[in-house]
This record gives sequence, structure tokens and C-alpha cells, in this order.
Amino acid sequence: MKINGEEKQSLWFEDNKIIFIDQRKLPDSIELFEASNVEQVCFAIRDMVVRGAPAIGATAAYGMVIGKKDAVKTAKLLKETRPTAFDLFYAVDHMLRCIQNGENILDSAEQYVNDMVQRCKRIGEHGDKIIKNNMRILTHCNAGALATVDYGTALAPLRVAHKKNKNIFVFADETRPRLQGLLTSWELSQEGIAHAVIADNAAGHYMKNGEIDMVITGADRIAKNGDFANKIGTYEKAVLAKANGIPFYVAAPISTFDPSIKTGDDIIIEQRSEQELKYYKDARIMPKETPVKNPAFDVTPAAFVTGFITEDGIKKP
Amino acid sequence: MKINGEEKQSLWFEDNKIIFIDQRKLPDSIELFEASNVEQVCFAIRDMVVRGAPAIGATAAYGMVIGKKDAVKTAKLLKETRPTAFDLFYAVDHMLRCIQNGENILDSAEQYVNDMVQRCKRIGEHGDKIIKNNMRILTHCNAGALATVDYGTALAPLRVAHKKNKNIFVFADETRPRLQGLLTSWELSQEGIAHAVIADNAAGHYMKNGEIDMVITGADRIAKNGDFANKIGTYEKAVLAKANGIPFYVAAPISTFDPSIKTGDDIIIEQRSEQELKYYKDARIMPKETPVKNPAFDVTPAAFVTGFITEDGIKKP
Repeated sequence: MKINGEEKQSLWFEDNKIIFIDQRKLPDSIELFEASNVEQVCFAIRDMVVRGAPAIGATAAYGMVIGKKDAVKTAKLLKETRPTAFDLFYAVDHMLRCIQNGENILDSAEQYVNDMVQRCKRIGEHGDKIIKNNMRILTHCNAGALATVDYGTALAPLRVAHKKNKNIFVFADETRPRLQGLLTSWELSQEGIAHAVIADNAAGHYMKNGEIDMVITGADRIAKNGDFANKIGTYEKAVLAKANGIPFYVAAPISTFDPSIKTGDDIIIEQRSEQELKYYKDARIMPKETPVKNPAFDVTPAAFVTGFITEDGIKKP
Repeated sequence: MKINGEEKQSLWFEDNKIIFIDQRKLPDSIELFEASNVEQVCFAIRDMVVRGAPAIGATAAYGMVIGKKDAVKTAKLLKETRPTAFDLFYAVDHMLRCIQNGENILDSAEQYVNDMVQRCKRIGEHGDKIIKNNMRILTHCNAGALATVDYGTALAPLRVAHKKNKNIFVFADETRPRLQGLLTSWELSQEGIAHAVIADNAAGHYMKNGEIDMVITGADRIAKNGDFANKIGTYEKAVLAKANGIPFYVAAPISTFDPSIKTGDDIIIEQRSEQELKYYKDARIMPKETPVKNPAFDVTPAAFVTGFITEDGIKKP
């Protein structure tokens, strides 16, 4: 990913610490957050210093390096941070197997993360094939380099298409309550990709008016039957895309597919703090006493998915 | 409507001034805004001191009283304030006819407003008939007493059902970018009606999970064929309701039906300032340079409407 013209990643491992671009501070300022013990790693995941299923997976892999002295306890603590993203569980279990096999744990973590970055790059190359010149593409939340260490999932095909000089325009849902659409906008601005942020309410309007040609989102967990969990609001966009005859693609590495879960009904949906709705940073948006509900994810049935863009090509549900 | 236990209206005429409960200040504080000349009346509509199609209509009726010395110019200025709500045009033309007929203009305006309040009351009584005990009802934006001087359109049936001791629960979309869901929450709290504010993204999730039994919204303008314009995001909820087999009702007085407009394609959609997305009151939510688009309304085709709840009963599209 480009940050002020330089090639960077959203997190990396250095001196036995994980260094994150603090996503809570973006897009207003670029600040680093360091985690040098397991508690800080768990805080970074829970408080969304780092977010996005693949980036959480990378964090967990490095977290296992930091907490290797008591790997079982570290694994337990990491798995308790957030319930929905499958990459977290996938990465922790992968690292536990590496430890059991007597592999070098830092090498294993580096390999896991580099492998994921390469998978995202391949997602971009496969996804680019379905992006035609002059397409207008809607995305929801941030499934960019920030969410995946580099390239992104949903944003990877857009990066490749843009590099190949295809003319594209991106609609970025602002994605209340956490406004991850602003992270998407920040990434697209860094790459010079034309786009506009819209209220989540406006996506249907643009679909109905024929101004959106394709939808691409990421995924946090994909069940065996193709149902998938992703940021709250994804289901709404999928239903609207189908109602308007617009192809709806999900970009995700194979590590997001959870073979132990048969259908979306079995995916646990995280309920997050009501403060996420009531405050933006320090600004109070709603009265303290306002009753709110804040599910962080929803489940979209496989029937709404045109295809999954993976590192191994585009798969039908 | 109840405000701290007392019966009030959202605006009234006194000493040749319109006095508004300033909706820009709610729900944080209850402040009054006075408009004693046509310029101030236009500002109140344009800056959303007052909002909601029927309340804008009432404001326009009183505005014609204030600007009666040059009625033609006043009518022109009022009609230029906002393009989508039909009640505005309906009220101004009604007042022009009253002037031509030599009627007392203040009496005519008072009669227009009182008549509208009574129509909302009747909307409540008709709408109550379709609300069963233990229903969970989604509403979008604020179509309450604030939007209509009293009772509301979409909220009127909920008020009546609650007064009849039916057990209901209301999901209020927060309704970005202007967060009119907070006005709905404020009104429901004043009446003691159980509810929760949700991100607009979460409505589909609750529909899919069988937690919403009915949707009721207001309307800003209804075309001859039953297509209607309402707050941005209404179309999304209508498509989602249909996909989930949930009845979708539109509550509106007859003054919202525009017989001169054949279909929704002919309704002008107001584009509002990008500042509405970028700021909440004084708090900046997005970087100044973020490219945004901000359509204020969308059009929902008649095919998604189960029925129109009017003062004359429930009509099929």
C-alpha cells in the first residue's frame, strides 16, 4: 500500500514487538501503536487498533510469537478478543501446530503473514479480470491493505485495475457505526483512485439509478455452504444488488473459509459497545440515555453471492 | 405530542411570528426559534430548524401570512427552499387560492394547520388497526409530531397503539447523515414507547433474523402511480422488507400525493451539502478533502408498498 507515496504495510514485527498503523487515528493522522506483550496485542485487536479479518489473523500469528512461553494461554487469550473473524482462529491454530512440530515460531509467523500478503496480491490479479473499463464499483467497510497487511481483499482488484490504467470509480459506504469507509477513502486517495464516500443509506439509490455496476466486499467468516459473515450492512447491500441485477462478489483468502461451520446460522455475531453509535471519537452524537443495539456483523446467504474472489481464482458459491 | 409530560406542538403562530421547536438542537436541548419575516421562514426550512413534509407545509402556510403583502414573491421564495417535499407546494398554492378568494389569510393558515393535525390523528387511528400486540416495528427518519406539527404520520399509529396499551417495540434507524432517528427516539422516549436506535446498516440484519414484523415510514411526495420519495435509505428498507416478507406501510396525508407527477422518475431529488456527512454539529467526522455525495431522498417504487395509511383509511398502491 502507498502511504504518502511510499510502499508500506499496515503492521509488521520488529524487536519482538508488533508495530501497527493505528487505525483508530486514521484518516486524521498516521500514528504507530506498539504491542510488546500479549495484553497489548489483545487490546489492539479488541479496541480496533487493528481490524479486518486477515490483519487480525496476522496480528494473532505475531501475538503467538510474543506469548510463546505460554502458548496455550496466549492462544486462549487471543481467541477471546473477537468472536466473528475466522482468520483469528485459523492463525492461532496454525501457530499452535507449528510449535508442536518444533518449527521456528518467528519464521512460521513471518511465513504466515507473507503468504497472506501474496494471497491478497493474487486475489487482486484474479479480481481484476472481472473489472471492465469505466466500471463503478461499490464497496462496504474497509477490506483494504489496512485490513490485510497489504493489497487488501475487496480493494486488491481495484488496485490492480487502476494500475492497469482502467478507468474506475468507487462508491465507499461510510459504514456506520465505525465509519471504516473513511479508511477505504484514505487508501483510495493514497492510490489516486477516484471515489466518493456515501451514507450507507444512499447505496440503494445509486444501484436503482444504474450508477453502480458491481459490488465487492470482504468477508470475516465463510460457512461451508457459502453463507458469510461480514461487517453489518453487507447483507443489505447484497439484497439490493440482487434486486437490481448487479453482480455481488466477495473477496477473501481461503483462510476465511471455515469448514467446521455448515451454514451462516452457526456463525456467532459479535455485539459491540453502544458507545460506538453514541460517540465519534470524543464527540457525543447521541444522548447517553438513548437505547441502542449494535451488532457488528451480519450474515449474507450464499444465494446473494455471484462469486468468491480467492487466491486460487473465482469460485461460485 | 408530549414534551416533559406537557402536551405541545412542534410549531405555532403567535404575534405575527412562527415559533418553532428548533429541531437542529434536539435531542440535546429544547430551544425555540422565531421567524418574523419571510427570510427567516425560508432559513428555517432550508437549514432544517423545521423538517418533515407536513411541518414544512404548515410553515409555508404561516409564512404566507407573514409575507402576505407581496404574496406572489413570498410564494416564489418559499417554493425555492426545498425541492422534494410536496406539502410545501401544496400549502403555498392553497394559500394563494385563499387570498384570491378574499378569505382571511390567518384564519386560512390556522385552518390548514389544524386540519393537518386532525388528518395525522386519523392516520394514527387507521394505522393502529394493523398493529397487533407484541409487534416490533421499524421506522426510518423522523415522521413524528416534529415532522407534522403533532401526532406524526409514521409515528401516529404507534402513539395510538401505545395509548391502547398494546405492547410494541420500535426499531429507529439512526438515519445518516442527519440522524433524524434521534428525533424519533426523543419523541418515543417522551411517550414512554420502548425502542432502540440502530445503525441504518443493522435494519436488514434484524429483518432477516425475524425480529421486525412491520415497517412504517413517512413520505415526502407520492406520485400518481404510487412511487414515493422519502428520506434517503427508505428504498433500501423497502427492498429488504419485501425480500423478507415483511409488510411495508407508508403513512402520509392526502396532501403528500402529487397528482401532477406520473411516476417516481419525475420527482426531483434534492442534493444537500457535503457538510452534512462531514460534520456532526461542530465535530468533524471526515477529513475536509474527502469526496462525498449526499442525496437527501430516494424514490421507492409502488411495488414495494403494502399500503398507504392515510386520513381516509388504508389504500393499496
